[in-house]
Amino acid sequence: MQKDINVAILGASGYTGAELLRLLAGHPRFRIAALTADRNAGEEMVSVYPHTLPQKLPTLTKIDDVDWSGIDAVFCCLPHGTTQDVIAGLPVHLKIVDLSADFRLYDLPTYAKWYGHEHRAPDLQTEAIYGLTELNRNAISNARLIANPGCYPTCAALPLLPLLTQGLIEADGIIVDAKSGVTGAGRSTRQDLLFTEVQDGFHPYGVGKHRHQPEIEQTLGMATGHDMHVVFTPHLLPINRGMMCTTYIRPTNGATEGDLRSALETAYADEHFVHLTPAGKWPATREVRGSNYCFMGLGSAGVPGQMVVISVIDNLVKGASGQALQNMNLLFGLEETQGLLLEPLYP
Amino acid sequence: MQKDINVAILGASGYTGAELLRLLAGHPRFRIAALTADRNAGEEMVSVYPHTLPQKLPTLTKIDDVDWSGIDAVFCCLPHGTTQDVIAGLPVHLKIVDLSADFRLYDLPTYAKWYGHEHRAPDLQTEAIYGLTELNRNAISNARLIANPGCYPTCAALPLLPLLTQGLIEADGIIVDAKSGVTGAGRSTRQDLLFTEVQDGFHPYGVGKHRHQPEIEQTLGMATGHDMHVVFTPHLLPINRGMMCTTYIRPTNGATEGDLRSALETAYADEHFVHLTPAGKWPATREVRGSNYCFMGLGSAGVPGQMVVISVIDNLVKGASGQALQNMNLLFGLEETQGLLLEPLYP
Amino acid sequence: MQKDINVAILGASGYTGAELLRLLAGHPRFRIAALTADRNAGEEMVSVYPHTLPQKLPTLTKIDDVDWSGIDAVFCCLPHGTTQDVIAGLPVHLKIVDLSADFRLYDLPTYAKWYGHEHRAPDLQTEAIYGLTELNRNAISNARLIANPGCYPTCAALPLLPLLTQGLIEADGIIVDAKSGVTGAGRSTRQDLLFTEVQDGFHPYGVGKHRHQPEIEQTLGMATGHDMHVVFTPHLLPINRGMMCTTYIRPTNGATEGDLRSALETAYADEHFVHLTPAGKWPATREVRGSNYCFMGLGSAGVPGQMVVISVIDNLVKGASGQALQNMNLLFGLEETQGLLLEPLYP
Amino acid sequence: MQKDINVAILGASGYTGAELLRLLAGHPRFRIAALTADRNAGEEMVSVYPHTLPQKLPTLTKIDDVDWSGIDAVFCCLPHGTTQDVIAGLPVHLKIVDLSADFRLYDLPTYAKWYGHEHRAPDLQTEAIYGLTELNRNAISNARLIANPGCYPTCAALPLLPLLTQGLIEADGIIVDAKSGVTGAGRSTRQDLLFTEVQDGFHPYGVGKHRHQPEIEQTLGMATGHDMHVVFTPHLLPINRGMMCTTYIRPTNGATEGDLRSALETAYADEHFVHLTPAGKWPATREVRGSNYCFMGLGSAGVPGQMVVISVIDNLVKGASGQALQNMNLLFGLEETQGLLLEPLYP
Repeated sequence: MQKDINVAILGASGYTGAELLRLLAGHPRFRIAALTADRNAGEEMVSVYPHTLPQKLPTLTKIDDVDWSGIDAVFCCLPHGTTQDVIAGLPVHLKIVDLSADFRLYDLPTYAKWYGHEHRAPDLQTEAIYGLTELNRNAISNARLIANPGCYPTCAALPLLPLLTQGLIEADGIIVDAKSGVTGAGRSTRQDLLFTEVQDGFHPYGVGKHRHQPEIEQTLGMATGHDMHVVFTPHLLPINRGMMCTTYIRPTNGATEGDLRSALETAYADEHFVHLTPAGKWPATREVRGSNYCFMGLGSAGVPGQMVVISVIDNLVKGASGQALQNMNLLFGLEETQGLLLEPLYP
Repeated sequence: MQKDINVAILGASGYTGAELLRLLAGHPRFRIAALTADRNAGEEMVSVYPHTLPQKLPTLTKIDDVDWSGIDAVFCCLPHGTTQDVIAGLPVHLKIVDLSADFRLYDLPTYAKWYGHEHRAPDLQTEAIYGLTELNRNAISNARLIANPGCYPTCAALPLLPLLTQGLIEADGIIVDAKSGVTGAGRSTRQDLLFTEVQDGFHPYGVGKHRHQPEIEQTLGMATGHDMHVVFTPHLLPINRGMMCTTYIRPTNGATEGDLRSALETAYADEHFVHLTPAGKWPATREVRGSNYCFMGLGSAGVPGQMVVISVIDNLVKGASGQALQNMNLLFGLEETQGLLLEPLYP
Repeated sequence: MQKDINVAILGASGYTGAELLRLLAGHPRFRIAALTADRNAGEEMVSVYPHTLPQKLPTLTKIDDVDWSGIDAVFCCLPHGTTQDVIAGLPVHLKIVDLSADFRLYDLPTYAKWYGHEHRAPDLQTEAIYGLTELNRNAISNARLIANPGCYPTCAALPLLPLLTQGLIEADGIIVDAKSGVTGAGRSTRQDLLFTEVQDGFHPYGVGKHRHQPEIEQTLGMATGHDMHVVFTPHLLPINRGMMCTTYIRPTNGATEGDLRSALETAYADEHFVHLTPAGKWPATREVRGSNYCFMGLGSAGVPGQMVVISVIDNLVKGASGQALQNMNLLFGLEETQGLLLEPLYP
Repeated sequence: MQKDINVAILGASGYTGAELLRLLAGHPRFRIAALTADRNAGEEMVSVYPHTLPQKLPTLTKIDDVDWSGIDAVFCCLPHGTTQDVIAGLPVHLKIVDLSADFRLYDLPTYAKWYGHEHRAPDLQTEAIYGLTELNRNAISNARLIANPGCYPTCAALPLLPLLTQGLIEADGIIVDAKSGVTGAGRSTRQDLLFTEVQDGFHPYGVGKHRHQPEIEQTLGMATGHDMHVVFTPHLLPINRGMMCTTYIRPTNGATEGDLRSALETAYADEHFVHLTPAGKWPATREVRGSNYCFMGLGSAGVPGQMVVISVIDNLVKGASGQALQNMNLLFGLEETQGLLLEPLYP
C-alpha cells in the first residue's frame, strides 16, 4: 500500500470545496489533511455542510494556521482576486490546483482589462499551466501550479478545439449561447440567487461582458494560433448543476457533418470523460449530473452552411472540482480518473 | 349593459383551453357557453382541472353535441392536423380563433413539407389571417378565421420585425436560440415530459427541424418581402411557463445600438403589451409570467458587429391563449386588452 | 363613478408589497398613491421589481416623506417588531391593514414571550382586530386597524374553526403538519433561502418553536372559549407559492366523516373564497396558486378514530396580501371580493 | 483477486434498475451479466437511458432469453403483482433481492386485502426475508430471497424501531406525515406525474389507503410483538429524490427527550448508514441525496407530552436500490457497504 498524499482545501466552505470532499471521499491516495474557511475557522464542517455528518473531517481553520509541513498539495477554492496573494505566500513544495480565475489568462493586460486590476503575482502567472486536461495533459503533468479552467470555457472549448485545429470550421462568427445551473454562482447570499428569484424562470446575465469570454478566446486562440473573437451569452438555468453550450458554427468549404463528427470522435476516442452522442441525438445536462463527463452532439442547424454543436458538463465537476482532481492526479503521476469514476446521478 | 357574446372552447381539457378559462373569467363580454373535450365528454371541468372547483362552467361535451345556434365564437384548442377538418365542419356564422398550427402557413407546399400531409382545407387556409396582433391588427379586425401564431414565432418575430422592415439588421445569418417552459408541450403523457425527466435539467430538441422555423421565416419574409432563412434551436426549460428567444443579429452598415433601440421603442410605443427594457437591462421569463406581455432587451453581443436581442413571453398567454383572446377582442370590435389586464405573477 | 380611495403601501419592496401591486392593478376603487421602501427611497419600482416595467407607479419614498393628507388607507408590509412604532406614528385618519405580526396576539405576555420583547404599542394592540375575514367579518368592518393573520394560522384555522366550535372534534391532540413555499420567508438574502439550498430538497424548520403556533392557538381558543395546545411543525417546500396544512384530528364520540364534512360545507356555503373538495378528493397547493382561495379536503386517516383535514392556500394571497385586500375592502364598505376575482394560475 | 459474481437486473428500464447500474459501476465484485426489459428487448441501454453512454453494458433482453447458468444473483425490479410469477419461475441457484412489494407482507390475508388478489407464490412468501438491513441483518445473511422494503417503510421504521422496542414511546397514536420525491412513482407515463402537474406544487395522495401502511405496521408489530396501527399520510414533493417522515410520537411516562435520543444513538452507533443529527438540528432530504444514508432528528413538538422524530432517505437509494445492494452484499458474505460508499451529492 502506497503512502497517502496529504491535501489541503483552501476555501472549503464554498460549493467547489464541498464538491471536492465528495470526490476525495472515494479517492485511494489523497487524504484530506486540512480544511480552511477563514470566516468559519474553529467550526466543524458539519455546521457548514450538514450533509457531511457521517464523514470524519479536519476542523476548519484559518489559512494562516495551517501547518504546511505535513501537506503535499493544495486545492485552492478561494475567490477571484485574493487568490493570487494567498498562493504567492504558500511554501514552494506544495503542488497547487487553483480553481479561481486568477491564473487563467496568460496575457497580463487582458487580465487587467477584464478583472479590473493589475495582476499582483505575474511570476506565478508565468509558471501556471492552464488546466484544460484534454488539451494540456503533458504540460499539466510536469507543472506545479495549475490554473483550473472556468466552467464555461471548459464546456465551450472541448467541442470547438478539434474542429478549429483541423480547420473544419470558420474561426470567425462563432456564437456560444450558454446556460448554467445556479451552483456556478457559488454560495454567496445575493438577492438574485434566492430560490424565489430563480425558480420557475430563466434569464441572461453578463451579456457581452462575461469574464469567461476572454478565457474562451485565449483557449481557442492557442489552438488556432491567431486571435479569436467569440460571441458568448450566458444565461441562468433554474437547476442546481449542469451547463450547456449551444454553439453555432459554419463549416469551411466542403466540410460535411460527417467530417466534423469524425474529427470529434477521433479527438476524444481515448478520452475517458468526453463522449459524442450518436448522430441525431443531443445531450442533456441531466445526463452528466454529478459526473466528470462532457457529452457533446453535433448536427445541422437547419439552414445551409450552419451547424450546431451542443456540449454539456456538470459545472461543479468537469467545470470545477472534478477537473481539478483530474489535474491533481496528473500532478502526482496517478491514474487520471482516480476518484472520478462516478456515473451520473439520474434522475 | 351590452349583450354577452357566447363563446365555445373546443379542446378545453388542454392547457391552452384551461388558460382561456382563467382569462375569460375576468372578461366583461365573453360568456363561456360550451366546453368540448371528446374523451372527457359528460364530465365536469373540475374532474379534469380541480383548480376550477369554484367556477360555474358548462359540462364537457363532444364537439358533435354542441348546439351552435347560440354560439357566436369559437376558440379552437385542438391538436394540429385534425383541426382543419373540425373547422371545415363548423357553421359559417362563427368567428374562430384557432390555436393550432393548421392555418398558420400560407404556402401549401411548405405546410405539406413540414407537417407531413397535404392540407385538407385550402380554402379556409386562404381565408385565415395570421394572428400576430401587433403585425396584422387591421386584417384581424376584419377577419372571421384567425390562425393564432405559435409561441416561438410570436416571441421571435416581435423584436425582429421592426429591425428588419427598417433595414437595420442583415436579413441573413439570424440565429434564434430559443428556450421554452414545459407547458408548451401541452398535457400529453409522454415519458420525456415526466417531472423526473425534466426537473433539474435542460436539453435541446427538434434542432434544425422544428415546425416553428418555417412559421418564423414566413412572418419575417412577409415583413421584408423576400425569402428568409433563420437558424432556430429550441430547448426545454424546467419551468412551467415562460419562453425566451436569444436572437443574434448583425446591424447593417452604420446602424448603432441606439438606432436599433429607437426602432423598437418607436414601433411599440403605443402597444400595451410590448415593452423594451432599459439599456443594460435584460428581460427574464418570470417578469411576464401569467401576463400577456412581451418584454425585450437589446444590446451589444460583446464582439464588433454582433448584437443580441432577447425577448420573453409567457408561452401560454402571449404565446397562446392570451394572444387568442386579444385577437378575439378584435374580431368583435372590443377593446383589445379586455380580459388581459393581468399583471405578472411574481414570484 | 365613485371617488378613488388613495392607498399607501409601506414596505413596498417586499413580496407582500409587490403582490399588493398585482392585486390592486385590477381594483376599481383603490389607487396607489404612495409606495415606501426606506432603503430604496428615490428609486422607481421597476428597479426593485423589473416585472412592473409597464405599470405607472409612484416613486419609492421614505415613510417620513409621505404626505399623509392625501392618503386614506395604508397597507403596512414592514418587518415584525418595528411595525408597531411606525403605526403608532401614523395619523389617526388612516385605515390600516397591517401584514406584520405586531398586532396579532391579544395577550401581551404571550407576545413578549414569543417575540422576545415587550409590546411598545399596547393601546393599538387593544384597538386592533384580528383579520381572519371569514371569522371576524363584522368586527373588521367596523375597525380602523386590522392585524392581518399569518399565513399558517389562516391555513390551519379555516378548517378547524367550524369543527371545533360545533364540538365535532377533540380540542386536544390536534397536530398540524404544515408546509410552505419559499415566498413565505420574504425577500431577505439568507444563505438558507438560496436557490441552491432549497431546490430539489425539503426540510422542517422552527419545530416546536414557530411564532405562528400561539397565533393558531389564540384563534382556536377564541372559537372554543378555552386554552388550546396545538402541535405545529412547519416545513419548507421547494416552490414559490403555496401552503398546506395536513391536520390530524379525532372526532368526538359519534361524529362521522359525514358530520364533519357537513359542518365545513355549511360553514362556508356562502363564502366566495373557501371551498371543500368532493369526498375522496384532496386539494393541491397548485390549485390555488395566485388566487385568494382556500381549498380543503377531509376524510379518514386510515386508522379508527383518526381523521385528517388538509387545507391549501397561496401564502402570498389568502395568506397575506389577498386577505389584506379582502379586509381593506371591508374597512371601506366595498364588496369583499373586489380586486380578488382572479382564478388560479394553473399550471 | 476474487472471482466476479454475475448479477442480472430484471426490469432494468425503470428507475430502480438504472440506479443499480450507477451503484454497481463502483462495486468491486458484482458484474452486470444480464439486463432485461421485455418491452425494450434488443435495444441498448443507452437508448433507454442516454446517461449510460460511456458505460459498457449488456444488450437488453427478455427475461425468457436469459441464460441463467452463468448468473449468480438477481435484482428484481419488476412491477408489483407480476413479480411473484417471475420469481417462481427462476432457477433455485439464484440469490434474489426483490425490489417489488410482492414478498413484503408475511400475512397472506393482509396481502390479499391491500393488493387486491390472492398471493400466487405463498411458499416463496414463507421463504422470503424482509430486508430492512439494520433490523434483519442476520436473517438476511442466511437467506436466498430478500423482500426489499418499501421506501416509506424504511424511512418510517428506522427511527421508530428502537423507541418502540425499548418502550420509550406509546405504541398507539403514532402519526407518520410522509413526503416523497417523484422518482418513488417510477417512470410510468401518468398525467399526474408530468412536470407541469408536479412542479411548483405539493399534494397528498393515497390518504388513509397507501399500501405502505400495512408494511409499516408489520415491521413495527414484529418489533413490539403486538398489532400496530399507524396513521400514514403520503404527499408528493416536487423533487426528484428524497423522502421525509415527520413522525409524531408520545413518550411513555417519564421518558425524556434525552432518553429517546440516547436510544437512537445507541441503536445506530455501529451503523454506517444511519445517523442522528445533533440536538436542535433537523435533517433535510438534500443532505442524503444520492447516498445510502438515513439521517434522523428528534426533539420536542412544542406541546407537553408530544415529540417529533424526523427521518430522511434518498428513496432510490436507501429506499430502494441502495438497500437492495446492501442486502445483496450480505447474501454473498461481502462487506455490507461495498458499492455504497458514495457521499451525498450536495447541492
